[in-house]
Amino acid sequence: MIWTRSFADRHIGPDSGETGRILETVGVESLDELATRAVPASILDAPEGNGLNALPDAVSEHDALAELAALADSNTVATSMIGLGYYDTLTPPVLLRNLVENPAWYTAYTPYQPEISQGRLEALLNFQTMVGDLTGMEVANASMLDEATAAAEAMTLLQRANRKSKSERLLIDTDLFPQTRTLLYTRAEPLGIEIVEADLAAAALPEGDFFGVIVQQPGASGRIVDWAPVIEAAHERGALVAVGADLLALTLITPPGEQGADACFGTTQRFGVPLGFGGPHAGYLAVHSAHARQLPGRLVGVSVDADGNLAYRLALQTREQHIRREKATSNICTAQVLLAILAGMYASYHGADGLRSIARRVHGHAQWLAAGLGDAVVHQSFFDTVLVNVPGGAEAVVAKAKGEGINLRLVDADHVAIACDEVTTDTHIVAVLDCFGAEVPVGPEGALFHGKQRPHIEVRTSEYLTAPAFTKYRTETAMLRYLRALSDKDIALDRSMIPLGSCTMKLNAAAEMEAITWPGFNRVHPYAPVEDAPGLIKLIEDLEGWLCAVTGYDRVSLQPNAGSQGEYAGLLAIRRYHLDRGDSHRDTCLIPASAHGTNAASAAMVGMRVEVVKTSPNGDIDLDDLRAKIADHAERLACIMITYPSTHGVYEHEVAELCELVHEAGGQVYVDGANLNALVGLARPGKFGGDVSHLNLHKTFCIPHGGGGPGVGPVAVREHLAQYLPGDPLVKGSHAVSAAMYGSASILPITWAYIRMMGADGLRRATLTAIASANYIARKLDPHFPVLYTGDNGMVAHECILDLREITKRTGVTVDDVAKRLADYGFHAPTMSFPVAGTLMVEPTESENLEELDAFIAAMIAIKGEIDQVEAGVWPVEDNPLRGAPHTAECLVGEWDHPYTRETAVYPMGVKHTRAKVWPSVRRIDGAYGDRNLVCSCPPLDAYAE
Amino acid sequence: MIWTRSFADRHIGPDSGETGRILETVGVESLDELATRAVPASILDAPEGNGLNALPDAVSEHDALAELAALADSNTVATSMIGLGYYDTLTPPVLLRNLVENPAWYTAYTPYQPEISQGRLEALLNFQTMVGDLTGMEVANASMLDEATAAAEAMTLLQRANRKSKSERLLIDTDLFPQTRTLLYTRAEPLGIEIVEADLAAAALPEGDFFGVIVQQPGASGRIVDWAPVIEAAHERGALVAVGADLLALTLITPPGEQGADACFGTTQRFGVPLGFGGPHAGYLAVHSAHARQLPGRLVGVSVDADGNLAYRLALQTREQHIRREKATSNICTAQVLLAILAGMYASYHGADGLRSIARRVHGHAQWLAAGLGDAVVHQSFFDTVLVNVPGGAEAVVAKAKGEGINLRLVDADHVAIACDEVTTDTHIVAVLDCFGAEVPVGPEGALFHGKQRPHIEVRTSEYLTAPAFTKYRTETAMLRYLRALSDKDIALDRSMIPLGSCTMKLNAAAEMEAITWPGFNRVHPYAPVEDAPGLIKLIEDLEGWLCAVTGYDRVSLQPNAGSQGEYAGLLAIRRYHLDRGDSHRDTCLIPASAHGTNAASAAMVGMRVEVVKTSPNGDIDLDDLRAKIADHAERLACIMITYPSTHGVYEHEVAELCELVHEAGGQVYVDGANLNALVGLARPGKFGGDVSHLNLHKTFCIPHGGGGPGVGPVAVREHLAQYLPGDPLVKGSHAVSAAMYGSASILPITWAYIRMMGADGLRRATLTAIASANYIARKLDPHFPVLYTGDNGMVAHECILDLREITKRTGVTVDDVAKRLADYGFHAPTMSFPVAGTLMVEPTESENLEELDAFIAAMIAIKGEIDQVEAGVWPVEDNPLRGAPHTAECLVGEWDHPYTRETAVYPMGVKHTRAKVWPSVRRIDGAYGDRNLVCSCPPLDAYAE
Repeated sequence: MIWTRSFADRHIGPDSGETGRILETVGVESLDELATRAVPASILDAPEGNGLNALPDAVSEHDALAELAALADSNTVATSMIGLGYYDTLTPPVLLRNLVENPAWYTAYTPYQPEISQGRLEALLNFQTMVGDLTGMEVANASMLDEATAAAEAMTLLQRANRKSKSERLLIDTDLFPQTRTLLYTRAEPLGIEIVEADLAAAALPEGDFFGVIVQQPGASGRIVDWAPVIEAAHERGALVAVGADLLALTLITPPGEQGADACFGTTQRFGVPLGFGGPHAGYLAVHSAHARQLPGRLVGVSVDADGNLAYRLALQTREQHIRREKATSNICTAQVLLAILAGMYASYHGADGLRSIARRVHGHAQWLAAGLGDAVVHQSFFDTVLVNVPGGAEAVVAKAKGEGINLRLVDADHVAIACDEVTTDTHIVAVLDCFGAEVPVGPEGALFHGKQRPHIEVRTSEYLTAPAFTKYRTETAMLRYLRALSDKDIALDRSMIPLGSCTMKLNAAAEMEAITWPGFNRVHPYAPVEDAPGLIKLIEDLEGWLCAVTGYDRVSLQPNAGSQGEYAGLLAIRRYHLDRGDSHRDTCLIPASAHGTNAASAAMVGMRVEVVKTSPNGDIDLDDLRAKIADHAERLACIMITYPSTHGVYEHEVAELCELVHEAGGQVYVDGANLNALVGLARPGKFGGDVSHLNLHKTFCIPHGGGGPGVGPVAVREHLAQYLPGDPLVKGSHAVSAAMYGSASILPITWAYIRMMGADGLRRATLTAIASANYIARKLDPHFPVLYTGDNGMVAHECILDLREITKRTGVTVDDVAKRLADYGFHAPTMSFPVAGTLMVEPTESENLEELDAFIAAMIAIKGEIDQVEAGVWPVEDNPLRGAPHTAECLVGEWDHPYTRETAVYPMGVKHTRAKVWPSVRRIDGAYGDRNLVCSCPPLDAYAE
Repeated sequence: MIWTRSFADRHIGPDSGETGRILETVGVESLDELATRAVPASILDAPEGNGLNALPDAVSEHDALAELAALADSNTVATSMIGLGYYDTLTPPVLLRNLVENPAWYTAYTPYQPEISQGRLEALLNFQTMVGDLTGMEVANASMLDEATAAAEAMTLLQRANRKSKSERLLIDTDLFPQTRTLLYTRAEPLGIEIVEADLAAAALPEGDFFGVIVQQPGASGRIVDWAPVIEAAHERGALVAVGADLLALTLITPPGEQGADACFGTTQRFGVPLGFGGPHAGYLAVHSAHARQLPGRLVGVSVDADGNLAYRLALQTREQHIRREKATSNICTAQVLLAILAGMYASYHGADGLRSIARRVHGHAQWLAAGLGDAVVHQSFFDTVLVNVPGGAEAVVAKAKGEGINLRLVDADHVAIACDEVTTDTHIVAVLDCFGAEVPVGPEGALFHGKQRPHIEVRTSEYLTAPAFTKYRTETAMLRYLRALSDKDIALDRSMIPLGSCTMKLNAAAEMEAITWPGFNRVHPYAPVEDAPGLIKLIEDLEGWLCAVTGYDRVSLQPNAGSQGEYAGLLAIRRYHLDRGDSHRDTCLIPASAHGTNAASAAMVGMRVEVVKTSPNGDIDLDDLRAKIADHAERLACIMITYPSTHGVYEHEVAELCELVHEAGGQVYVDGANLNALVGLARPGKFGGDVSHLNLHKTFCIPHGGGGPGVGPVAVREHLAQYLPGDPLVKGSHAVSAAMYGSASILPITWAYIRMMGADGLRRATLTAIASANYIARKLDPHFPVLYTGDNGMVAHECILDLREITKRTGVTVDDVAKRLADYGFHAPTMSFPVAGTLMVEPTESENLEELDAFIAAMIAIKGEIDQVEAGVWPVEDNPLRGAPHTAECLVGEWDHPYTRETAVYPMGVKHTRAKVWPSVRRIDGAYGDRNLVCSCPPLDAYAE
């Protein structure tokens, strides 16, 4: 029973009185009437038949947390010595509290509006600098989704970068992590890349041409190999080389960048990011400058603002999927920003000497183990992982250790691997040696551990982490203030609505966030025995079931750790389905002109040809063109990818018919779940014609955007595709899309809590409120900025596109100007020029109350008034508050030679306006300058000097 | 073993290189040399003999947290139905994360600099409004330490306010909480107040005169009484009336303010503040306007700033101990600001209707219980607590409930009391009824609980919580942004050093803060069976032992929940010691002229006469005057109260001799522990002559200031005073100073963690670093602002006084001007005009690194440069950047008619300076205006309008 406001009442912004006023403006009597007016009857579910009755009744925040606590407590947090790319680590409490648990950081969006994102851009530049320094490479991106996907991206990067080679063969070392190998095979096959495996440490390169070679340092077996000769041989053979490298090991050993490698990839998990049963954590990918433009994903670069001050922004965006579509370097979109920032701050807090100390200790423990195990040790050169030969006895050793609360890695019947990490203690080493029946050495071998004798692997001579970011913030007070100062530069949900169409920036409630930092959820190794994780498995099963209920599909996989990966997994399922049916010729993917760029990029990655379907004048998919395209490509039709409601923010009336057309032609229907926030409780893609969808838990289901990640992109399918869902990455020959079976498992409690606390009624009400608020904004702003597309009864769905093209033509004021000007009003801009250039797409979500909606509307109307002044010639088009936006506080104090006042510049609603002023920290940034003068690591100190 | 920076390295700002540079400036070679040069040899401990070897070796943050987790887990979090002023409650997660766990809130100082404290001042005004609305009173303070001390303050308030009465008798109802009664007796006795008890609900007032009457609503027995006739009768008798009232009950029943009560007191604990094994939580005290000037403690009022804008600041400070000393209304100083803000925000989040719903549900559960228990119920009118008559069976019922995980209250052999609260569920009611062998009613009585029938106690007709603060922030998004916007107005430790002399604003580390929000520590009722709390008891015992080791005393009590209460407890021990020895004539307390005002106020509260000892020209206590005063008052000498190092920031050379002089005269030596941060590891007051000290855990031992509380003020004594330490407040006849045996128990893990992680070496190094940094600042700033007092070898202790009196005389620029101007430079001001008017006292603490120290020094030197400009006549004394300070961003945009530039006003170090700009939200506040036009609750909405 609920005796005060329910969680839904807290999550949903407008209360019943406000909702009434919103509906009045929209012209409907009730939310239920809104549903019937906005959503086509052909797909609209009745409330009692919308599938949500499969969800449990809503509970309060405290009850949900109690249930989560019981689930967390049922997991076993064992001492993890499994390794394989996942290592236990200590998150400094100052970072846990002030970064991971701070909404100023975790509710921020991807820094596409750099003027109000300088804080996280600086933090990401630190991350890139850290990766570059440690690997010895010049340019690192920020960031990859995990090590295995980074390896797969490295593979295609080598192919792109190697323009001289005609080969389609990739050579990989046999000592790669098994999950890396699985991902490489999964990704290579649709692209026609042939993978050759060989033990490259033992023998010369196999015969033939290769476009690339991938090795790992240290290997899965723990061995350290001097890869310099192999790299040289590969280069002689015309191949480029990527090295998967452990960043902590690189504090001691020679980095691949100094050995001639062309790319480095790996994970930054062990830099303070919890094991998390697999994720989320940030992978990395770094290259030499020559290949910078081949890097996939997001890359932060240095540029200047309108006043000539140094400023950061995303660089070289023309490489990316949202611009280049199927020709992009990758489909990667949401990355792992929050985790990359955490890893970077871990490096800032420990500094070079601190990281080196941790590495020495880890290595010392491994050396101590090896000293005790003597001749049973297989490889003599290792960093943290010792491979032990115990003929016939491996299972018994692992079982004995399990009894001691320690998880070791069973390699095969004769071999056990033991990985040491930051949390390994003397006690663990003694316990492990005891499991082998080994003596504990106390002589000179043991002394190694105490650092009295330098381990011979410590041969690195080059310096790293010398920038101020890694020397200035070594005390808790200094770090605390650095984190605060950075976050103060950014607009996140804790200060303003973020009305980003298609991105669904809704509340990330504290109760949802609470459980993710509990050890019971975030300190379990992804490859721990399944009996260690009953609570996690139960939570995952609950969630899979609930997402099936919401979407109408039959099966869900939570493995994809971003929407892009869910999309890839879904398309891969379609590909494999056709292949299994002998329809290998079905390789054509129809994509509407208005689709997310990711759609096309993903299709390309599964080897499909993209055919664009035209848009009707009303914004809908042109069904006639669709029919024609189907006819043209009938035999080759693999699928269509649609977004519903459309990326135009409209419930297209003929969606059911569209699905039928494709099915009749033997194609599959992919429904992109980006706009699921407008469907939950109203319509189910799995019921109205979809065969597969990916969802974005960071949109509809409250996982915070984290400044650009983590994301979670489950893939949902109908029964006939269930067998093609992602498999276990540790199982050879399986198809997997993430290094861990359940992807970003440790943040799933967020979505679990959201659904558990909202219940069926709450979820449906959220959807309808989001639609109501979008229509409210559309009605209020249409007289000032025409709404481009509407659906049935003139309704939009959960977002609306404001068309500025005529205004721009008439006045010269651009969408850029309006977006930047909104920062002066204290708002984050809507989505700019997507899906239609020259427009703004506004999505209020259900979490904003009427006061905030009205404040946004008032700001937009005031901006229109400013545009009118420009049009009237009061202000010239080159010098007006819009073109000058955003304005910093600093720009107020010098000479003022603009035709508008200082007050107009920074307090456009007047100085007495009660909305809290948010100061942009830089003025309009010159992106082109930065791309021409590419700098992607921390500038030297004097760049900041006066 | 420590393989990376230890916690001490993170806590202490300067690293070894920086420390070297600091020491070079100070002119010593090492920290050890600094110790011998600064601290008199007569009291200096050798490192190996400083008592700290009794502390355990330092452990890492993660190990300390693991130990705390084990302690927390050993406690039993039972369902608490004990009541008696402590009720389980649900802290809304949005408040937990963004307020309680947010350093922007918890590291702030008392808002004595209102221009940079508007956020927490507004939050406190909300608290005052909430208390005023609910009690029906006009003025509430913010806040009291708990309900029992609030009752004691109400007692003396009634006496002060009742100028017509000559009586020294107080009449109290027999149905007060037992802890309230104990505190009243404890406080009354030294003041010569005679307490008379009577059952005022049953019979007429006893004969004779009373200055005051205190009753409670509902009573300890749970009964609700219509006190209107009693209040009327008391008034006729010339007595004023204070009512202890439960705020949740007041949402339903008629508030005392509407029944003629002169004062109301109580607790706000059940408004979202965890039980905490007793604390901390905020008590309240409210009066009618006529008595506003009699209120003790802090009171927030509305005023205007230099631009005429509405602004908040502490009102009527002339009532308080730091100004009126022994004539103050109370010794209360640090209150419970963070908890008051939490309770106020709880009311904002729930609003009037939400609180009423919670109250109805609580009452419904109690009604349901009563329906099941029938004739055994003693009182028919109750809110949440049902008193049950079970002749001879009470113990058995309580034991049975205990077996079910429910703690009931054993009143006596025949009576059990059961208190319902916000977390009580149907299941609990059923289980409790079962313990009594009662049937569970399902008829109309049970239906009451479902709110279908209005309980007859719900007779309140007046509205409450109608201000926007209680209607605008009802969704999580709105509350989150409100909290952020408020905290952005304040300077706390997360943005700047706070160099407040005597206040020791050092790091509050995240690892120290983590455990206090764990249920194992914060969800145990203070009167729960002791076997429920082994972990808490162990933690308390550890801490008592460690504090003995640090101070050199023999026994410590952690009961006092603020420094003022520790002081009171210490003086009470001295008083009782003399009385027990038959020395009832010893009533004179010697206090140096430079003492904290609290000292004198506390002395007055234990009935002592204050005699002031003069200060020598060098700032030390004038020993000749001391000898003379001792001679004058020899027979009457009770004690001396000194602070060491002195409030002048100096290690007085003759402290040991001074102690001897007092002892020889039969007096006791009270060493105020305010400056213990300069002693830990170097000298121990319990060894160099002190008989008793109070400590301030929120100064030396890292409990955050919370914007003005919580504080913890343990009292430490030598063996001969141990029997006079505070007793159990539940035991009749004991002397207690707080409502709960262990005061603010739930925040003790902070100090426990600090000591556990620092260890002996870390603590001593912290002390020496604090001294080194203070001397560094003194050396650097002395040429610009003369350092007033120094001790041996020209050294200061951990703070230094900068003398501005000559500068003010020459130039007209005041300490106020400098303090406010520092805000423009982004710094919180040092302590102003304490202990010497016209000076600033600077305390850097050990947590600030050299960069921050140098930044502060640079700001101060720049300010001196500005003063020079005024002196040179460049700027007039009425219009210059100092007098104009602080400057808001708003003031930049209008006409600028000052002789200094906008840039000078707000970017005095230049716009390119890298220190993050902090914008004051108002300009200089006119405090006198606010005192003349006293407004202490939320202004009506139109006050904010344009």
